[in-house]
Amino acid sequence: MIVALAGGVGGARLAVGLAALCAPERLTIVVNTGDDFEHLGFSISPDLDTVMYTLAGVADPERGWGRADETWSFMETLGKLGGQDWFRLGDRDLAVHVMRTQALARGERLSQITRALAKLFGVTHAIVPMCDEPVRTLVLSESGELAFQDYFVRRRCAPVVSGFRFAGAEKAGPPDVLQALMQRDDVEAAIVCPSNPFISIGPILAVAAIREWLEARRFPVIAVSPIVGGQAVKGPAAKMMRELGLEVSALAVARHYGPLVDGWVIDDCDAQHAPELKALGKRVAITNTLMCDRARSIELARVVLALAREAGGWH
Amino acid sequence: MIVALAGGVGGARLAVGLAALCAPERLTIVVNTGDDFEHLGFSISPDLDTVMYTLAGVADPERGWGRADETWSFMETLGKLGGQDWFRLGDRDLAVHVMRTQALARGERLSQITRALAKLFGVTHAIVPMCDEPVRTLVLSESGELAFQDYFVRRRCAPVVSGFRFAGAEKAGPPDVLQALMQRDDVEAAIVCPSNPFISIGPILAVAAIREWLEARRFPVIAVSPIVGGQAVKGPAAKMMRELGLEVSALAVARHYGPLVDGWVIDDCDAQHAPELKALGKRVAITNTLMCDRARSIELARVVLALAREAGGWH
Repeated sequence: MIVALAGGVGGARLAVGLAALCAPERLTIVVNTGDDFEHLGFSISPDLDTVMYTLAGVADPERGWGRADETWSFMETLGKLGGQDWFRLGDRDLAVHVMRTQALARGERLSQITRALAKLFGVTHAIVPMCDEPVRTLVLSESGELAFQDYFVRRRCAPVVSGFRFAGAEKAGPPDVLQALMQRDDVEAAIVCPSNPFISIGPILAVAAIREWLEARRFPVIAVSPIVGGQAVKGPAAKMMRELGLEVSALAVARHYGPLVDGWVIDDCDAQHAPELKALGKRVAITNTLMCDRARSIELARVVLALAREAGGWH
Repeated sequence: MIVALAGGVGGARLAVGLAALCAPERLTIVVNTGDDFEHLGFSISPDLDTVMYTLAGVADPERGWGRADETWSFMETLGKLGGQDWFRLGDRDLAVHVMRTQALARGERLSQITRALAKLFGVTHAIVPMCDEPVRTLVLSESGELAFQDYFVRRRCAPVVSGFRFAGAEKAGPPDVLQALMQRDDVEAAIVCPSNPFISIGPILAVAAIREWLEARRFPVIAVSPIVGGQAVKGPAAKMMRELGLEVSALAVARHYGPLVDGWVIDDCDAQHAPELKALGKRVAITNTLMCDRARSIELARVVLALAREAGGWH
């Protein structure tokens, strides 16, 4: 069993590669729900939807969120009526939010709902939220403690960041299916996708049972660096590292994760960091990590799985 | 002041005519909310929206509900995902439902929300729900007591009807603005629009304060027959009359309303009923009542207002 930890786009794209190489029963994708929120009466799970849409092949390839064949009549009308249109919701996307919101209101668990939706979208690999309880990422910034989407979408990540808080994480535990998986002794590797370490992977690791399971692991953890050539491929990871006083490099990301990651896949343009990573005791693979299409996602997943195999001593 | 009682399409179309002839401060349109319901998490007010969209000039002229320039991506996607798609909600229409639902959740009253929405749509005449409290029309039928939209949309009015119940009406009172209007001594006439007597006007009259105000009136009540040539122009009024053991005619509708209506505007093709209506003590005007376009709505409104003027002795 391979367990991938994923946020939005980067996680979703590596998940596509892993899903192409692993049978459905051999891959579980654990997804960040720290940026879930309630908006316009809808329960919205951005990362779960990005992973689901991407695996289903209906994600918009440019935008990084939402569906490819989308229309925008709802948002357009809401905007004209003076409604809140800073968080863009497509008309088709809305159907998923309505179904999720209704199911939550009926008392169903997010993990059940996610499984049902993924099935409807023809996704065969398991997508599992990091927990069923609401956990909300709060961004500590010069503008105070900001709700995640307020920081991320409304303020376009402008405020200088000083830290993060994952409200509700202390009471959150992995969903049943993930708890069951954590009991198994055939986990071969955990993969930390090239997602933002602070706001995508951070919330997942803030669920104590998941972090403790990884800390006590007997399998390797392999990560793909989200920083390439001193920049984040997408999103505010590099800006956050600067604001937190960190160097913006694959090496600094490795230091951030510390002993939680055994092997690093870094980009060709960061090859100079390989000796330092090895000096930290990490296994290293160097490849082109930019997943600009499905084929490249699969190539990267192949390198990730090879490094995991090498680190874990399995074949 | 002219007060019109309206349901959906017929009411909305006569409202267009009345609005073209009356200054905004001289016309109040009281709208049925008995077919309001909660669906997919939205608070939906079909008649309020039909009246608002029609007055705003954005209603679909064929369909009789919803907007003209509509798209259907939400419904299409919901249907594909196995969601409830029996009550069709357009993408633009959804924006109104979301705004209403959110405002209700904030504790705003339906009458306030309706006023705010109407203003956003550029409607200058007052649209007022019959009450702020939820009243729900229940259809007593061979299939049991059915929620209105279950009967009307889902079952396409197929079950044989034996009566109606307006749940919550006993606790409902007119909104502030309508109560204030009911105190005024300058009401010139009430107009009963050609809407379904049982399920459009019936719920309005089930609000005791409104019925009592009309019963104690010193102004004439003028109605336009919703039955033309033994048929309902739209909707199940004729079918309901048959099932309730009533003759399907303008005369039977007049008997149904009894002393509550002083003057009847009937269609040219029902001219034979004029003597009987007069024998019942009613004033009668005969004209073409089919409002197939805006000009015809205005012509009908002109006849209605002339009959009111004649009945009320005002000029």
